[in-house]
Amino acid sequence: MTDNERFDGRTPGQLRPVTIERGWSKQAEGSALISFGDTRVLCTASFTNGVPRWLAGQGKGWVTAEYAMLPRATNDRNDRESVKGRIGGRTHEISRLIGRSLRAVIDFKALGENTVVIDCDVLQADGGTRTAAITGAYVALADALAWGKERGFIGKKAVALTESVSAISVGIIDGVPMLDLAYVEDSRAETDMNVVVTGAGAFVEVQGTAEGAPFDRDELNALLDLALAGNAELAVIQRAALEG
Amino acid sequence: MTDNERFDGRTPGQLRPVTIERGWSKQAEGSALISFGDTRVLCTASFTNGVPRWLAGQGKGWVTAEYAMLPRATNDRNDRESVKGRIGGRTHEISRLIGRSLRAVIDFKALGENTVVIDCDVLQADGGTRTAAITGAYVALADALAWGKERGFIGKKAVALTESVSAISVGIIDGVPMLDLAYVEDSRAETDMNVVVTGAGAFVEVQGTAEGAPFDRDELNALLDLALAGNAELAVIQRAALEG
Amino acid sequence: MTDNERFDGRTPGQLRPVTIERGWSKQAEGSALISFGDTRVLCTASFTNGVPRWLAGQGKGWVTAEYAMLPRATNDRNDRESVKGRIGGRTHEISRLIGRSLRAVIDFKALGENTVVIDCDVLQADGGTRTAAITGAYVALADALAWGKERGFIGKKAVALTESVSAISVGIIDGVPMLDLAYVEDSRAETDMNVVVTGAGAFVEVQGTAEGAPFDRDELNALLDLALAGNAELAVIQRAALEG
Amino acid sequence: MTDNERFDGRTPGQLRPVTIERGWSKQAEGSALISFGDTRVLCTASFTNGVPRWLAGQGKGWVTAEYAMLPRATNDRNDRESVKGRIGGRTHEISRLIGRSLRAVIDFKALGENTVVIDCDVLQADGGTRTAAITGAYVALADALAWGKERGFIGKKAVALTESVSAISVGIIDGVPMLDLAYVEDSRAETDMNVVVTGAGAFVEVQGTAEGAPFDRDELNALLDLALAGNAELAVIQRAALEG
Amino acid sequence: MTDNERFDGRTPGQLRPVTIERGWSKQAEGSALISFGDTRVLCTASFTNGVPRWLAGQGKGWVTAEYAMLPRATNDRNDRESVKGRIGGRTHEISRLIGRSLRAVIDFKALGENTVVIDCDVLQADGGTRTAAITGAYVALADALAWGKERGFIGKKAVALTESVSAISVGIIDGVPMLDLAYVEDSRAETDMNVVVTGAGAFVEVQGTAEGAPFDRDELNALLDLALAGNAELAVIQRAALEG
Amino acid sequence: MTDNERFDGRTPGQLRPVTIERGWSKQAEGSALISFGDTRVLCTASFTNGVPRWLAGQGKGWVTAEYAMLPRATNDRNDRESVKGRIGGRTHEISRLIGRSLRAVIDFKALGENTVVIDCDVLQADGGTRTAAITGAYVALADALAWGKERGFIGKKAVALTESVSAISVGIIDGVPMLDLAYVEDSRAETDMNVVVTGAGAFVEVQGTAEGAPFDRDELNALLDLALAGNAELAVIQRAALEG
Repeated sequence: MTDNERFDGRTPGQLRPVTIERGWSKQAEGSALISFGDTRVLCTASFTNGVPRWLAGQGKGWVTAEYAMLPRATNDRNDRESVKGRIGGRTHEISRLIGRSLRAVIDFKALGENTVVIDCDVLQADGGTRTAAITGAYVALADALAWGKERGFIGKKAVALTESVSAISVGIIDGVPMLDLAYVEDSRAETDMNVVVTGAGAFVEVQGTAEGAPFDRDELNALLDLALAGNAELAVIQRAALEG
Repeated sequence: MTDNERFDGRTPGQLRPVTIERGWSKQAEGSALISFGDTRVLCTASFTNGVPRWLAGQGKGWVTAEYAMLPRATNDRNDRESVKGRIGGRTHEISRLIGRSLRAVIDFKALGENTVVIDCDVLQADGGTRTAAITGAYVALADALAWGKERGFIGKKAVALTESVSAISVGIIDGVPMLDLAYVEDSRAETDMNVVVTGAGAFVEVQGTAEGAPFDRDELNALLDLALAGNAELAVIQRAALEG
Repeated sequence: MTDNERFDGRTPGQLRPVTIERGWSKQAEGSALISFGDTRVLCTASFTNGVPRWLAGQGKGWVTAEYAMLPRATNDRNDRESVKGRIGGRTHEISRLIGRSLRAVIDFKALGENTVVIDCDVLQADGGTRTAAITGAYVALADALAWGKERGFIGKKAVALTESVSAISVGIIDGVPMLDLAYVEDSRAETDMNVVVTGAGAFVEVQGTAEGAPFDRDELNALLDLALAGNAELAVIQRAALEG
Repeated sequence: MTDNERFDGRTPGQLRPVTIERGWSKQAEGSALISFGDTRVLCTASFTNGVPRWLAGQGKGWVTAEYAMLPRATNDRNDRESVKGRIGGRTHEISRLIGRSLRAVIDFKALGENTVVIDCDVLQADGGTRTAAITGAYVALADALAWGKERGFIGKKAVALTESVSAISVGIIDGVPMLDLAYVEDSRAETDMNVVVTGAGAFVEVQGTAEGAPFDRDELNALLDLALAGNAELAVIQRAALEG
Repeated sequence: MTDNERFDGRTPGQLRPVTIERGWSKQAEGSALISFGDTRVLCTASFTNGVPRWLAGQGKGWVTAEYAMLPRATNDRNDRESVKGRIGGRTHEISRLIGRSLRAVIDFKALGENTVVIDCDVLQADGGTRTAAITGAYVALADALAWGKERGFIGKKAVALTESVSAISVGIIDGVPMLDLAYVEDSRAETDMNVVVTGAGAFVEVQGTAEGAPFDRDELNALLDLALAGNAELAVIQRAALEG
Repeated sequence: MTDNERFDGRTPGQLRPVTIERGWSKQAEGSALISFGDTRVLCTASFTNGVPRWLAGQGKGWVTAEYAMLPRATNDRNDRESVKGRIGGRTHEISRLIGRSLRAVIDFKALGENTVVIDCDVLQADGGTRTAAITGAYVALADALAWGKERGFIGKKAVALTESVSAISVGIIDGVPMLDLAYVEDSRAETDMNVVVTGAGAFVEVQGTAEGAPFDRDELNALLDLALAGNAELAVIQRAALEG
């Protein structure tokens, strides 16, 4: 291995193989089984005509998301949150991140009084589950909105989805900025960042954390460059899936 | 449609197409993605050397199971049990049934002080999720035990798994006993029965419920006949999967 | 002791002494303190005019049940489920069984928009608590329905209760099928079955479990024969209590 | 009715009929089914050799109590606390009161490293459930301690129970101080007081609450006089039960 | 130290320094940061126009209270009740006491259909937190009611607050009755009593507990005398704060 | 108001008045009451010799944090999380952020097998509660570590705290990047970012969220510039507090 070669042979700026199996679920209004390498997330979008009570009568819709992991998605089995009777902080945090990311590309007036609930269930986890979830959830959401339009719940000319959105992780390992960290990389990263970007390349979320030493402005900039490039690739893959 | 023809063209005694994707999970010691028609259940078996404290020092092992359903496995989305903070009665009941069914074919002395936790997560539900779960869990369990043997946690000559076990639903619809009910059938059945049977054809569990009118001895016997035949077919499919 | 003699001198097909103290509670619309030997269950039926929201406006009623055990009903004290903050799987399962068994003999149209909640609280447990609960709950339910009729909540000519229902446990111990297992018998049984039957002798629920070796068709049939005979006796005792 | 005549014909200073059915439970080391009129509480005392971890190695024992009410002990059915998943403030408060009251008559050194858990389950409620619970719990506790002595867990000469303890409610209704309020009286009382007293007539707990207008020193004194007299009667009844 | 001198130099009948910082919170309709020595409690009163559903349409208002302690208000850190997922018995009990004490001086008809929620959060605990809470809550409540009157939610001539109310602890230490126990005193007291009194000197609550030996009538009387005197001083301090 | 003038007269790059009342708590090993304008957070640090079980025997320490808000810290009262029985996603997320931020400046080897638990309780909220919490928690942590050193739990020459750490919020309002948003500003911001920085000016956390339109690279850079400047000021204030 040369210095910058990764455990799976990728270059620092290379994504893992990404696949999107659109319409995986027979029952949901929109769905996608997305994989980033060995990470596999089932994303479903449930469309309901009507909104929660606190929003009623304002002519606006709502999009929310829940993230969860099967107990044996990981190398060691984790107790179920339903059995523990409470949702952990990490789960809450990621659910909120997915919801905010998708809402950033929704025009709630155009959506009308409709609700979409996104479920992202990690079937297998190998790093980057939240970024795969956001990227797959966008596809499921797009299909659910198309479903709502076909049935007349959304106006014919309404553009509820203003842009595409995707997410990727970046990190610094042994001083080298790298794209789309797998689990073995993630656990060694000194700095870890998740970047959510629109199809047009604008930032929706930037969440960077120093796991080891704090990071400086140059490192931050290098990571953002990688993340923008990676998200541009994801946007192409999403478009292909939706046109497929 | 003739009188006894079913919505999907099956005869009363015919199973839906059954597939078992063995080793679906990269991480679990044993796993199977099983489908009974559109019902799809991911079964994983997590092997741990050692036993819970209440069993320690007795030279015996333990097998337990948890069942759950993704929120959008069904036609309408159900709230997550983790979000509600409590597990529903139906979930509890099915988890217990799966655990008992698998323990019936385990020799705990031969297993030694090892624990296997089975997770059955319904990814898509179209009737018969508990019977698919038991049938798939057996395959995952067999692989996890083989894994434990290879690594020396189970004795070389020990036969921890004494037999195979599978399960199928039967029910009476418009007076006709039928095998392997899909959701649209299940919701119309007057009587509904789940029958867990060993590979040798002996009963492990018989759970019959009158949904409409109570049932008589002849109806009970007709249902048991169908269930024994169906389970015999499943045993063949399980064997094929494990040899595949 | 001869081979088939039981610890308390009963023959294999003999019930324990059964008593039903009808109207034990001063406050409930129907109540019965039932004992199967040393098992004692207080059953109350609470009648309410009106139905839960999800059923409103359909002209139909509802019957539901909850089962629980006092902490020191057993030989060793169990923690209270209220203190643990969650209901165990066994409690859920039995509550659901009692509810289904009683609903099997209710004509919901005849009941009209009324609700009956059954509470079965085990004051002392010595095996067969769920079967005693169903058998006693029927008596409490009958009285609550009579109460509802007297006050005009149920139509004068309406027959809300279509039949009687009772339940008994059976099991195989040392190869011998036996009726109405006490705790010391239950814990030794190879096979354990609870059978819920209407007064006319039709099956409402059949729940058989192999605790040790799986059981065959002949054993199943012998158990069902015993259970039908035992339930026929219980039906006589219930009738006597309601006429007393 | 003359001015001070009560709804059930009692005089202001008269107890309701009190009965104590000692040894009601076959399984608990001590038990008593106590009734104060229509209030009926089942008290059990569970004796365990050993103490909770936080107390181990100090040569001292522990006594604790839990109070609960069956859902239909009252005129309207209350939801079960186990179903709600949390214990209400009132339940907590009464459990703590019972525990403190019993601990006041225990010599923990003499008890040795043993634990007694008292359960007071209200089967029927008609006012005064906490005072009946304390009074009955004392009898159950005494029997459990005798059980522990017989089996040698408590030293032969040790006097773990230093005195008897009982409790009664008093209140002011239409300006008249009255003893042992039934439910219909309790809900009309301007002032309500529960008084826990030892057999020797000393105070263990005095809990007085102004439900309507605040009360003055004279009223307080009149209530305490009544309560002392009532508890003296209860002490006689307890002694008779324990000698019976 | 002479016999009766206290650890901080107070006489047996002397209060700790009491301060009331009225209007501490910028946001609440009424608030007070009260200290009894090193005990510091932040009391806020939240005024809402309208009442809970169960009270609607009766022309009456409602006042309720919640008590809590910061995790490090005490010498050793306590786990948060929000993290444990349940409120302890002590917290429940004190919340209920505060609510009852304040409701004793409210005329609910005069309050009209308005609700006041009192929050008493202990920032630092050194004994007497519940008595400080009641005493400070009264000041917060008075300000919240004044706020409601200014805005016209309460009638101009309505007197919703009929009297002042305060509370103090008393106890017997080494046989000497003492006022306003600090933590080191409280943990040594043989008898411990909390007394809630109106500004006019009438009792709202008397809660006396024998921590060691039971107490007799003379001791009870001595404690009540001390408590009445202490509360009279508190009433003066409250008045000064409200006029300040 | 000129274009860039803020509601309280500040310039875009100006902090609100910051005060740190060090040692506010008499009981905690370290504490600080910090205010950013009207936002007031009580931070305590509880030092314990020893570590959680999962870390024992590795010669390393642990630092963790919990964040919470009093119910009436805000303009409208929020239900207590202890009463709801579950911690919300926002609370979890902020607790985790504070913990990570502090751990970034800890040398766990130097800390030795000691644990510090940080509690940040918001007494009054006016925007920026999480950044005030981190900034104040650092001061409390520093004092708790000094306490541990004085008592010999931390080695004499060990430098457990490697740097200072502080946090500030920045956001874009009407297109203008602004520092330290108050609540009225925060709710209008198009983009909102929390930046955690060490005393040396390196990044520990960057969390930027597009509340309205996504943001571009230039906006991101402008916000980071402001945040670095603001944190530099906070570092000076922290140093002054610790030297004071």
